[in-house]
Amino acid sequence: MTHAAGPLLLLLDYGGTKLTAALSRPGQATWLDQRRFFTPARADGPYEYQKMLDLARELLTSVGEPPAAIGVSFGGPVYAPDGLVRLSHHVPGWENVPLAERLQAEFGAPAAVDNDANVAALGEYRFGAGQGCENLLYVTVSTGIGGGWLINGRPYVGADGMAGEIGHTLVQPDGLPCVCGRRGCLEAEACGPGIANRARLYLGEAGPAGEPLLALTGGDPAQITAKMIAEAAQNGDQFSQGILAESARRLGLGLANALTLMNPDRVILGGGVTKSGQRWWQVVRDTARQHTLPEIRVDIVPAAFSDDAPLWGAVALAESILNQPTNQPSN
Amino acid sequence: MTHAAGPLLLLLDYGGTKLTAALSRPGQATWLDQRRFFTPARADGPYEYQKMLDLARELLTSVGEPPAAIGVSFGGPVYAPDGLVRLSHHVPGWENVPLAERLQAEFGAPAAVDNDANVAALGEYRFGAGQGCENLLYVTVSTGIGGGWLINGRPYVGADGMAGEIGHTLVQPDGLPCVCGRRGCLEAEACGPGIANRARLYLGEAGPAGEPLLALTGGDPAQITAKMIAEAAQNGDQFSQGILAESARRLGLGLANALTLMNPDRVILGGGVTKSGQRWWQVVRDTARQHTLPEIRVDIVPAAFSDDAPLWGAVALAESILNQPTNQPSN
Repeated sequence: MTHAAGPLLLLLDYGGTKLTAALSRPGQATWLDQRRFFTPARADGPYEYQKMLDLARELLTSVGEPPAAIGVSFGGPVYAPDGLVRLSHHVPGWENVPLAERLQAEFGAPAAVDNDANVAALGEYRFGAGQGCENLLYVTVSTGIGGGWLINGRPYVGADGMAGEIGHTLVQPDGLPCVCGRRGCLEAEACGPGIANRARLYLGEAGPAGEPLLALTGGDPAQITAKMIAEAAQNGDQFSQGILAESARRLGLGLANALTLMNPDRVILGGGVTKSGQRWWQVVRDTARQHTLPEIRVDIVPAAFSDDAPLWGAVALAESILNQPTNQPSN
Repeated sequence: MTHAAGPLLLLLDYGGTKLTAALSRPGQATWLDQRRFFTPARADGPYEYQKMLDLARELLTSVGEPPAAIGVSFGGPVYAPDGLVRLSHHVPGWENVPLAERLQAEFGAPAAVDNDANVAALGEYRFGAGQGCENLLYVTVSTGIGGGWLINGRPYVGADGMAGEIGHTLVQPDGLPCVCGRRGCLEAEACGPGIANRARLYLGEAGPAGEPLLALTGGDPAQITAKMIAEAAQNGDQFSQGILAESARRLGLGLANALTLMNPDRVILGGGVTKSGQRWWQVVRDTARQHTLPEIRVDIVPAAFSDDAPLWGAVALAESILNQPTNQPSN
């Protein structure tokens, strides 16, 4: 922290299909440098870790300065207090990797690691749509549904580092099947693949009403995507509008339960499904309002960051290490 | 805080049907003195407030010492940051009463007021079944269902002071009607009157299976209570066992959603319905476990305190004022 320009922050994002490394300094609203690498289909954890070290070393060599702190966003469950990666759902070989510890040994600087939803929540709180909101829920609605909490202005991860798993709260008993093995989880009911699943399920009894959507896929229901449904809905296809609205209602119900239970200042929604149009947003907000006690505010807004959200959160994570020295790993 | 015996704490509990005032000192596991008053059926807010002042003055006169801090548990919605009572659901005339401010003016000591579920959560955390649990959900399952949070060892009340309203999270779309005007809220599905409602609803198609329970009421379904159902269930009545188990499953689902969303260290259950027997507890715990991700702990235990819970919480509330002077009201 003796550099005139401020301490150097090393920021890493392990995303499942891509790795990103970047450098920044506190208070700078941009990157000194950034490198990205798209992982091949059969990459494993050790390979990705090595690639990330390479990217980071290249960046650091070009700046000629060691990092003062390292912030890491990881796309999978993390035990944040120890910076321990539990696993990746996309890439094998990440089981129980002490990532913070390894990076600290590698670069000689304290490292903080958290899962991407928690990190994105922190990024939105510090730099994005959640500024000034001490109690904040960030929800990403994408190929899955994940969430992260800020409570009293601090990341909140719970007893096992698992807080924020709103995607696996129940919104529809005996509803659509979920990757977790149960049914009716918010994720199964409202994420991108869930929206497509619902369309496939309802096509059977839709008759001619389903034809416009089916035509977009060349007649193959397996090709249906949430993006396709959103576009068809915006172009006036009533079947797609119905599918989208039902999924949006389920999301509104899940958010209502979170609002009722925790009464946050604001909910921020990110992820591809949030690009589904104004009507989707309206149904989400109206449903959340209808199912929440009137004394509880319902403030649901789009995320400020999209692809760069994890890196912005990693900046906040790295800064928080510098500002709270008691949080530094001791080994 | 200059008294050799420690500062005097004045503790008040407005319970809906009874008022209690007590005195204690930090670190004392008992009351110096305590007075209780059962409110007449047509009492209103101003009457109750006056009665409470009388009780408190009697106690203080007998000790001959002013209070250093005042902790208050109120049976209804409170905006805790300001100690503002929103209303009582049982007694008229409590609308928007600045209770903390009035008590402070009256007794010359800082006062903290919160609703009974939040106060009970704090009491269990400091002195009861939640000791050592920095992240704690307390749920009272009684004539209604309320909840209170401790997050990072501090009461958490949310943006509008409404956090913890688990009773109004949705567990069964289109389920039993709730006092809030919606259907399928956890409260409607699992509180005492909700259990009785379910029994009345199912009696119609139960035939002879419903007769043992109905006989206990002298043939009048309106007389059915949750306590009666629990007793019949424990005595082997299968109809009552089914009613109780279904209500317990709904509670388990509601708790699973809270566990999934917040991953607390522990959930503490208090209130009369928790006396419904080992089978009720087993169904609640099993259902919560089945509907929560395996990485998330499910630790659900009975409250340590029953009738005195609000007073114990008020002790913790009063102590917290003394320990955190920045929280003292400024006027």
